[in-house]
Amino acid sequence: MRKRKLLPTTRLEAFSDGVLAVIITIMVLELKVPHKDGLPGLLSIAPIFFVYFLSFAFIAIYWVNHHSLIQRIDECDHRVLYANLSFLFASSLLPFFTAYVIEKHSDSFSVALYAASMIFTALSFLLLRLSVGRLLKQSGKLNVEDTATQRKHVTSMVIYIAAIPLAHYHPYIALGMITMTTVIWIVPTIGLTSHPDEFP
Amino acid sequence: MRKRKLLPTTRLEAFSDGVLAVIITIMVLELKVPHKDGLPGLLSIAPIFFVYFLSFAFIAIYWVNHHSLIQRIDECDHRVLYANLSFLFASSLLPFFTAYVIEKHSDSFSVALYAASMIFTALSFLLLRLSVGRLLKQSGKLNVEDTATQRKHVTSMVIYIAAIPLAHYHPYIALGMITMTTVIWIVPTIGLTSHPDEFP
Amino acid sequence: MRKRKLLPTTRLEAFSDGVLAVIITIMVLELKVPHKDGLPGLLSIAPIFFVYFLSFAFIAIYWVNHHSLIQRIDECDHRVLYANLSFLFASSLLPFFTAYVIEKHSDSFSVALYAASMIFTALSFLLLRLSVGRLLKQSGKLNVEDTATQRKHVTSMVIYIAAIPLAHYHPYIALGMITMTTVIWIVPTIGLTSHPDEFP
Amino acid sequence: MRKRKLLPTTRLEAFSDGVLAVIITIMVLELKVPHKDGLPGLLSIAPIFFVYFLSFAFIAIYWVNHHSLIQRIDECDHRVLYANLSFLFASSLLPFFTAYVIEKHSDSFSVALYAASMIFTALSFLLLRLSVGRLLKQSGKLNVEDTATQRKHVTSMVIYIAAIPLAHYHPYIALGMITMTTVIWIVPTIGLTSHPDEFP
Repeated sequence: MRKRKLLPTTRLEAFSDGVLAVIITIMVLELKVPHKDGLPGLLSIAPIFFVYFLSFAFIAIYWVNHHSLIQRIDECDHRVLYANLSFLFASSLLPFFTAYVIEKHSDSFSVALYAASMIFTALSFLLLRLSVGRLLKQSGKLNVEDTATQRKHVTSMVIYIAAIPLAHYHPYIALGMITMTTVIWIVPTIGLTSHPDEFP
Repeated sequence: MRKRKLLPTTRLEAFSDGVLAVIITIMVLELKVPHKDGLPGLLSIAPIFFVYFLSFAFIAIYWVNHHSLIQRIDECDHRVLYANLSFLFASSLLPFFTAYVIEKHSDSFSVALYAASMIFTALSFLLLRLSVGRLLKQSGKLNVEDTATQRKHVTSMVIYIAAIPLAHYHPYIALGMITMTTVIWIVPTIGLTSHPDEFP
Repeated sequence: MRKRKLLPTTRLEAFSDGVLAVIITIMVLELKVPHKDGLPGLLSIAPIFFVYFLSFAFIAIYWVNHHSLIQRIDECDHRVLYANLSFLFASSLLPFFTAYVIEKHSDSFSVALYAASMIFTALSFLLLRLSVGRLLKQSGKLNVEDTATQRKHVTSMVIYIAAIPLAHYHPYIALGMITMTTVIWIVPTIGLTSHPDEFP
Repeated sequence: MRKRKLLPTTRLEAFSDGVLAVIITIMVLELKVPHKDGLPGLLSIAPIFFVYFLSFAFIAIYWVNHHSLIQRIDECDHRVLYANLSFLFASSLLPFFTAYVIEKHSDSFSVALYAASMIFTALSFLLLRLSVGRLLKQSGKLNVEDTATQRKHVTSMVIYIAAIPLAHYHPYIALGMITMTTVIWIVPTIGLTSHPDEFP
């Protein structure tokens, strides 16, 4: 009877692609043309530009992992739909917290919020993974979790959590740690390993 | 001859996903970074944040129900297309009425408008359900309406209508009722029952 | 050899759905919450609301016709892709000319511009129809043009053109004519006939 | 073992369509209704309008080439996904640099930046082509590069690079060169040749 309730994942994918595409693109509206002319004007917005890049990369990596995760199932139940919607909700807050960091000039509180927002997204993605895993078990498919991915998972979560108190004293170092985590997720996926890593 | 005019639902789904994705995401632009620094600043926008969450959940639930509803048909006629467009039109007003509630600090009139906008969306979704039902009958497929869903349907419509006059005296209680309705729609879908509920 | 160059229409459809979805939805950002409180505030934005509705209906009707038109072909050449992009470009200007009418309080010039923008969109859609027709002829499929549709086509084009000079003397009557044309396109499609009408 | 990691290109296409659709459409938000009434007001924004058209055409041409490029493969690896994301990132900056040119009234520095942004997009698209080419070679499919396309490729890159120093002395001529390059890419694709050209 439950089988009857399963829905194909096509619309989950299409809707997620749409929401993530809007999220990743409207952040560019935060980039305001500087009043100063010439190169000094451009340089004055370099930090803003950097935060934009960081947020773009963050959503991009999640999109890659969302792609890999949903790829494993052909159909989903309502639990997966709602877990996915909570992931999209968490992601939709990133443009806001990106604007927060930009408008508060990367002060301690805004960087801590930014890290907290990333943890919130990570937790909602974990929820999605669990609900997909539950479905895989139900359908009898083996859900082999890559231990390397899991270690990465835990590591980046720890770094995000560590970034919150650190932001109080050294916001830029906290921001640097968040950056590093992002880079670590991209690099080995392309260069060293060939398996679809999953972001925290 | 009519058969020839039926169109596959793929583009209806893609367009609806696109419009709902934009609606659900541009609402985040209403979240403005507070002038106040630190925690007091963040706390000052907590009510705004809550209204954003409510509107997000509202569209998210409709998306789930839209998904379940359109899933039942493979092809549609122009009547379904236009009923769907009227549903999208009603939904597209939600960001505006969300901004209304936020900018008017949840005053009586704005909360009443917010509830009215939800009734408008509910009615347009009903129109869509009727046109899909008509198509199912034409093609000879039985359209068994779940009585539990219908009861839920009527209940939430009644709550929305009751919220309008109530908003005049107690806007926050009216907002609470709208919230409760939203929560009721999400919870049993995940936890208790396994059938795809349909939102009012 | 030319065959090799034909591309499936899936991405043309997906991209058009995306662009039209964004166009139809960002227009809601033109709806600004009025400063006045209560009902007088809401009534003060009624004309703006009406123009928003008109533009939404305009894009919605085009989407229906775009859907019906592209439905006729499975593959397309670069000519169709570029004709489609010119249609999307013309449509993308509608939010701007809608804002124009709203901010200029439906003065003569802005209404004339609005009508001109609709003619521009109509012409670009005609271009798209011609390029699709060309492809249908090449592949040997009969391209039977419905004479009723063609008559409707010419009629609405004439009304739009007539609206431009009329806007100089009576902008509201010109706006009324544009509204009527929109309504005429929607009504018979649902009620009387069963063929997919094509909007100018 | 690597085979197992290949993903179908459907979501890459859907996400790219979504992001490019948002990029191409939010640029219209840069078109501000002029304060002046009537024709003088409209004429005063003609240069802005022209830059909007240029940016729209730029993204549109890239979309056509992205379509043709991804069409060649059915599955992709993570390298292609990340190359595609870097292309989307480069494209996402165009609305910002378009706003830059508009707000700085096409001064030397903003036009040079605009050209630089186009070069950055061209390079990221080259990266995408290389990663797709690598995949085609791996799967043993011949990757015949059209020499005419390659010549066009190099030519437009040279023009963009030349536009940067030229913008210092004659920003309008530099803008004209960028326009010409765009036009050259559109015209022969429709008129003369029948092969899917690839933009720089």
